[in-house]
Amino acid sequence: MTEAVRPETGRPSNLDQKIASRLKRDADGLVPAVTQQYDTGEVLMVGWMDDEALHRTLTTGRCTYWSRSRQEYWVKGDTSGHQQWVKSVALDCDGDTVLVKVDQVGAACHTGDRTCFDADVLDSVTGERPEAAGV
Amino acid sequence: MTEAVRPETGRPSNLDQKIASRLKRDADGLVPAVTQQYDTGEVLMVGWMDDEALHRTLTTGRCTYWSRSRQEYWVKGDTSGHQQWVKSVALDCDGDTVLVKVDQVGAACHTGDRTCFDADVLDSVTGERPEAAGV
Repeated sequence: MTEAVRPETGRPSNLDQKIASRLKRDADGLVPAVTQQYDTGEVLMVGWMDDEALHRTLTTGRCTYWSRSRQEYWVKGDTSGHQQWVKSVALDCDGDTVLVKVDQVGAACHTGDRTCFDADVLDSVTGERPEAAGV
Repeated sequence: MTEAVRPETGRPSNLDQKIASRLKRDADGLVPAVTQQYDTGEVLMVGWMDDEALHRTLTTGRCTYWSRSRQEYWVKGDTSGHQQWVKSVALDCDGDTVLVKVDQVGAACHTGDRTCFDADVLDSVTGERPEAAGV
């Protein structure tokens, strides 16, 4: 196995070349990773992965992200105990987003909430599909 | 209502100032928007929103995104007929991601798949939480 250095990040990656060739990364070499509870469907959080974080997520059974603020890898749960055990990983149709289904231990959010989307629901108009509205 | 021009994009936005002040945008003035089917929990797609796309999503009952490739707003379903009727919108804990729960008409993916994550499931090791493994 050859470790390749990614030009966008300057960091080495062991990601399978067949997967790496399908990834469309942003200017920082990252893709957003949506993390979802595998059985309930809850969207838990969105993190960021470079090639090596995706490689580690695919090969260790635990989610690894790239921290944009700290500029380092982090394995979810190593500090908090709130691990994410990987159930499946998929790329989207144009290779610029990852969906990771996991079994989340405890709270996904650093605030202690189950998900990062629990606390700030915005006021919005809702829509109704025409057939549901009886049109 | 005052239209403000966003410095990152140069585009005017009508987004409520109280929401705009909580948004943490990328260098292009965008945040990723995760779109989820409100009743089944399917993650349908990830798009991108600037302030005005979020404003339109919040106020029209239909999802509006910013197309990074075409550099224009698009209302999901206007071309395909596969509208997304908004049920709720939430910001995440640090204001850099949006979760939109919708009622998706037909296929969310331009390929005709129900979701953008159906076609490219990657080989991965799976993990098991210790208690589930009987440890």
